[in-house]
Amino acid sequence: MKPYSFEPIGVIRSCFKEKFGTPRQPGLVPEAAAQVEILPEFRQKEAFRYLEGFSHIWILFVFHQCADRQWKPTVRPPRLGGNRRVGVFASRSGFRPNPIGQSVVELASVELQKESARLHLKGIDLIDGTPVLDIKPYLAYADSVPHACSGYAQRAPMGSKPIIFSATAAHACRQFEKGRYPQLEALVANLLAMDPRPGYKARDDHRRYGLSLWDLNVLFKVEKDRVVVESITARP
Amino acid sequence: MKPYSFEPIGVIRSCFKEKFGTPRQPGLVPEAAAQVEILPEFRQKEAFRYLEGFSHIWILFVFHQCADRQWKPTVRPPRLGGNRRVGVFASRSGFRPNPIGQSVVELASVELQKESARLHLKGIDLIDGTPVLDIKPYLAYADSVPHACSGYAQRAPMGSKPIIFSATAAHACRQFEKGRYPQLEALVANLLAMDPRPGYKARDDHRRYGLSLWDLNVLFKVEKDRVVVESITARP
Repeated sequence: MKPYSFEPIGVIRSCFKEKFGTPRQPGLVPEAAAQVEILPEFRQKEAFRYLEGFSHIWILFVFHQCADRQWKPTVRPPRLGGNRRVGVFASRSGFRPNPIGQSVVELASVELQKESARLHLKGIDLIDGTPVLDIKPYLAYADSVPHACSGYAQRAPMGSKPIIFSATAAHACRQFEKGRYPQLEALVANLLAMDPRPGYKARDDHRRYGLSLWDLNVLFKVEKDRVVVESITARP
Repeated sequence: MKPYSFEPIGVIRSCFKEKFGTPRQPGLVPEAAAQVEILPEFRQKEAFRYLEGFSHIWILFVFHQCADRQWKPTVRPPRLGGNRRVGVFASRSGFRPNPIGQSVVELASVELQKESARLHLKGIDLIDGTPVLDIKPYLAYADSVPHACSGYAQRAPMGSKPIIFSATAAHACRQFEKGRYPQLEALVANLLAMDPRPGYKARDDHRRYGLSLWDLNVLFKVEKDRVVVESITARP
């Protein structure tokens, strides 16, 4: 069959600068705020009429970091420890024949002005710069199947270790919260609660990891019975 | 931003031959069965490993009958009587900048053979011949938001008139049910319960309408307090 060509209508502006640390599904970290910046050609006000009546919307997007890579019939989802293979069509991996993703996110507000159009979102799992192909309203009566059986992914992934902030990190957090990042502590704690490390590392590996959020670096390590946030600093 | 090109991985085989009469969202008519026929290049067995553990899957598809038409900033959804305009991004209309659709459907079974690969589906809202871009598992913990507020489309559309089969139609139905169409009566009744007529016609218009299902023609009319199925015949 003939291929179809699609042109992005918008782009994601988010605190997540790289795949590491970005939630693996939407809705897991409510503090993860972002915007869809609508591109000039699609900025007509009428195109968004009544969208504000919906609490949740679908974002269809391109896994742009996977777009140039060859797909394989199986992938190793982090949820299975990163060493069991499942079919690519039985996964939500971005490495797929057509790297299109879909995320349901909370719509906080719609900001339409002459020079800009932005949808403000919560609970996102998308990297900064992600091209957006479509926005659709979430229809609970059609899209919500609460009792669906979800195979090997029945429940949300969730770590069980408490998240501890070092004195330095806690102090930095309070400073940044007074400025541009009011929910920083909750965001960091909820992101680390899901253990962003690759699945095959999911033990105590004594390594120090860095998480990029906006222009901040968050350093943490995973110990036997806790996760320690060592520092939060602004990148130079 | 640069456009992205996507090649279909499969095609829908369904009883619905045209837009008229096709359910407007998935899941509304459970008897609406269909298959995704996977195209040869994507027929590797491993690509579907563990898919059968999921009760529901997402189908990402192209609204191919809309693909060559220019989009407009507003559309008139049938649910609002067909005469009120809403923004295209506040609708699920197929006439949109990137005519990609998404439907969650029940996965009845996966049939993988050397010469063919088919996913058997229930509750579909897709026209025969629809190009399929992607198959993903439905993840209830991420995709199901039962309490989402769905603006002007809070509840499933549903007509309220009883569906009456004429003696001729009832007899034909029994005959076809013995053959290739075992759930025909329930399918026809559930399709007509949703009133497939265009929104602006949603009164008693005394017209006779035809519904195409596989190679069958279903003739019906809408009276004041009931819908009458007049005949069901095979197309020559």
